[in-house]
Formats: sequence, C-alpha cells, structure tokens
Amino acid sequence: LSEAPIGVFDSGMGGLTVLKALLGRLPGEDFVYLGDTARLPYGTKSPETVARYALQAAEALEAYRVKCLVIACNTASSVGLPIIRERIESVPVVGVIEPGARAACEASSSGHIAVIATEGTVRGGAYQQAILRLRPGARVTALPAPLFVSLAEEGLHTGSIAGAVARHYLRPIFGATDSAESRPDTLVLGCTHFPMLAASIRRAAGRGVRIVDSAATTAETVVRGLTDAGLLRTGTTGSSSGARKSARKSVRKSSRTRGTVRFLATDGIERFARIGGGFLGRAITRGEVELIDL
Amino acid sequence: LSEAPIGVFDSGMGGLTVLKALLGRLPGEDFVYLGDTARLPYGTKSPETVARYALQAAEALEAYRVKCLVIACNTASSVGLPIIRERIESVPVVGVIEPGARAACEASSSGHIAVIATEGTVRGGAYQQAILRLRPGARVTALPAPLFVSLAEEGLHTGSIAGAVARHYLRPIFGATDSAESRPDTLVLGCTHFPMLAASIRRAAGRGVRIVDSAATTAETVVRGLTDAGLLRTGTTGSSSGARKSARKSVRKSSRTRGTVRFLATDGIERFARIGGGFLGRAITRGEVELIDL
Repeated sequence: LSEAPIGVFDSGMGGLTVLKALLGRLPGEDFVYLGDTARLPYGTKSPETVARYALQAAEALEAYRVKCLVIACNTASSVGLPIIRERIESVPVVGVIEPGARAACEASSSGHIAVIATEGTVRGGAYQQAILRLRPGARVTALPAPLFVSLAEEGLHTGSIAGAVARHYLRPIFGATDSAESRPDTLVLGCTHFPMLAASIRRAAGRGVRIVDSAATTAETVVRGLTDAGLLRTGTTGSSSGARKSARKSVRKSSRTRGTVRFLATDGIERFARIGGGFLGRAITRGEVELIDL
Repeated sequence: LSEAPIGVFDSGMGGLTVLKALLGRLPGEDFVYLGDTARLPYGTKSPETVARYALQAAEALEAYRVKCLVIACNTASSVGLPIIRERIESVPVVGVIEPGARAACEASSSGHIAVIATEGTVRGGAYQQAILRLRPGARVTALPAPLFVSLAEEGLHTGSIAGAVARHYLRPIFGATDSAESRPDTLVLGCTHFPMLAASIRRAAGRGVRIVDSAATTAETVVRGLTDAGLLRTGTTGSSSGARKSARKSVRKSSRTRGTVRFLATDGIERFARIGGGFLGRAITRGEVELIDL
C-alpha cells in the first residue's frame, strides 16, 4: 500500500498550491490530482451540490487505488468531508479546514483569528466551528474574499490591483480600529487560491499579523498521517520543519527516485495546463493532463 | 402564440441585464428567465461543454412554451447558437453576438472595433467573425476581461478597484499609442455582466469611444423580431428609440397589464436573488426563484 499514489482533489486549479506543498515535502511519492474544472467554482454553489460533486470526485480518485485522499478545496472540505469519510472507508481522508484551524489556534496569542475564504466556505461556517472546537474562547472574524480567486487565476498576484483588492477586504478586518487589542493577530488563508496572493495580503493585513497558509498546514498533516501509519514510500520525505538537515539529504536521495504526477481534469485541459502551472510553480504541458468525466 | 412568454437564458445572473433591457421595452410581456447557476461560469469551459449545457437549458425553456428564446449569454451564444437553432425549430432563437456585432459595425466610423468579453467568448472568435461578416474591411481587437465578471457580482461597479481593473484591461487597447487613428473608436461590451461597469469602462476607454452594450442591442432585436412576426402582446411596447411619446403612453397603459416574470435557477437561490437584484435593477425575493434541475 505504501507504493500507492496520494490522491488530491480540488474544484479546479487552486488545490495545486496544496500539491506543490506536498511535492516539496514528499518528492518521491506518486500523486493523482483531480481538478473538477467543468463544474468550478464550488465557492458559489449550494452545500448539497458541492457535497454531491465532491463525493463523485472522491470516488473517482478511489478508483486509482490511492493510499490517502486530500480534499484540497476549502469549500468541498467544509461541506463534503463527513459524507466522503463515511463513504470512502478504505483510505484516510484529509481536508484543508482542520489543519488550517489547528495552525491558527497555535499561532494566535490573543485568540482573535480572522479567516478569509470563498463565500461558500464562510457561509458554511466550518472554519469558525473548527477553531471554536479547538479553542473554545477564540473570537473568529470570517469574511468572503472571492475576488482573490479571479486575481490568482489571472496571475495578478502583486501590483496595484492586487493591492487595492487586498486593502478592500482586509481594511475592514485589520484597519477598523486603532486599538491593537481588537484586531485579530492571525489570518487564515481559507482558500487554496489565496497563497498565490500572500505577499499582497501580508502587506494589506499589516505588521504583526501571522498568516496561516492552509496549503502548507495540510501538507504537514498528510506527511504526519502517512508517517504515523507507516505508509510513506522509503526515503521520500522532503523538507519539513524541524528536520532540515535530514530533509536535504532525503531530497537529494529522492531526486533519483522522483515520483510521478498524473493530472486529471473534467474540462478545459488547455486552460488547466496554462493557469495550473502558475499555481504549481512549474510548467504543466497539455499532454500531461487527462480529460475525465465524473 | 402572442400570449406566450419570452424565454431568456444565461449561465447565471449576467443575463438579467438583458432581461432588464427587455422589460424596459416590453413591460407587458411575460418572461421566463433561466440561470444555470449550478454550472456557471461558462466563460472558462470548453466549447463542447458549453454547447451541451446551453442546449439543455434551451430545451428546458422550450417546455415552458415560449414564443421566442433569447440566449442572453455571450459564451453560450458564441458556441451554442447553431445547435440550439437546429434542435429548437419551433421558436426563433436570438443570441447576443449578432446584435452587438451589428450595432458595433453601425457605430464605428473607422472600422476599428474593440471587443472585451470572457476568455471563452474571445477564444471562440464569434464576435470577430460576426463583425467581419457584416463589415469585411473591419479591424477587430478582442481581449478577455474576466475580472469584470467578479467585480459585477460583488457590486464593485465604480470606485478605485473597478477603475484600476478597467485601466488594466483597456489601456493596452486604447492607451497604447498617441495616434488616434490606430485606436479603436468603438468598444463592444461582449459579456452581459459588463454593462454594470459601464461607467468605469467608459472612463478608462476615454473620450470619443462609442460603447456598444449588447444587452440593449439584443433587446432591440427581440422587439423588432416579435413586431415583424406579429407576436407582440397588444400594447406591450415600452420605451424604444425614436418612439418616446408613444412609448410613454404604452408604458402607462401596460402598467395596468404588467407581465409576469418567472425566475428559474439550477442552484443557489439565495445568491441568485441577492446578486441578481443588482443586475435587474429591482429586488428579487427568494420566493420568486424556483430551483430546477437540468
């Protein structure tokens, strides 16, 4: 089973930021990434519809005999995780909400945590609930920031438009008052598209705000889970906090036995390759992407 | 048949700008508006998928025994119109591309016409082809402006962000050169979302550029088509250019016999009502929107 691939699912290309984080830590693992590009975005759809779509995608990835399933989509994680875990019993399923919420609770001193996400994720309340479960006294300010999705897909990560949009969303959260006490001290990027805009977001949030990137925290959770279950391929661990030296060694070793990545998309292969490359941090060719029907 | 409703279809809420233009001209007509909100946006999907979705929606509206079918979505018009016209033989089908292209050819002195639209519409080349068919010597500059869709849906129609995005898209078209001769003199808003941002777009395009709003031109085409076919309900014509006085009279008359509007959506009724109201220019209540499955 340790030789099996890791399945990663997102509504589109945003989850490639999670795949990028996973590849950085687990360069010797095989991955199957499924983007449900025919039906994106999930963020504006009803919970019932998103749960149905996410389950179909999870079942499609299960057919690739994955050893672990990562729901690299905040909206799908927030409404689809319970039903996916119920139906896909054979493999562990990791969402992006829990790892992000846990990291935020650990990072925050004051207990006042801000979350920006898609409309669907914010309305679903999954981050709010997860944070309050982990830290009952926490105060959570959650706001939708849907324009960041379009900006990330257009490659407008920095510059005046990204800056203006970041200020538009973050000023009501961080700039409303002069009192530092009433401002959140931690900001969760609750959408897998948002790490692309991290620099603009960081600038608009201001100094002293800790940014929690749920792509990075999810990758850590997967590494830990596979390690604990003894399901890592031998010598595949890449860089991971607290183990830099051994990480460097294993990256060097694993570059000889680098894993494979299969990309599946439900529509628009050309667009997936073109825009996905920006998210993954390396070019994706059209030939690498297979069209599938869900 | 003249008592039958007019069917209007869009991938989401953008087509409500076309419905608004139709209601202004035909206040006594009944309308059935279908927004395929479960599968929006069409602009990023492949032509095959969009054509399939558009045909399903057209068939759903046909079941409401409409007397005319308006494809109020540029992407669906550009790739779906031929197959819809082939399959739905019983009623006339009006798209948004032809009316916009015709109005642009009439408005342009120089023959250099710019089109901004979604990625799918630009790549499909329908506006370019329609303009060149009507005016073979024309020069067409077509560019995708997808962020306008998100801005329109978020209600950011004016202000610094809308201005910055408008300049981002329009400066390469209108500001690239000092020579007025090489600039287009006409700009087609080739997406039904874009009329919401007309003020910001007009400012960024600069003086002397004629703006063609394909929602308004499509409504004119529908009025002319129904008039020619003798299919208008009696006394339903509202304001229409060149007939202001009689229009005022008929609007007054028709306010007594105002038509009905049915809204159908494939998902997210709450969001449809909330955001759609901005596009339609009047509030839509959740109770007015029916959920249907395609």
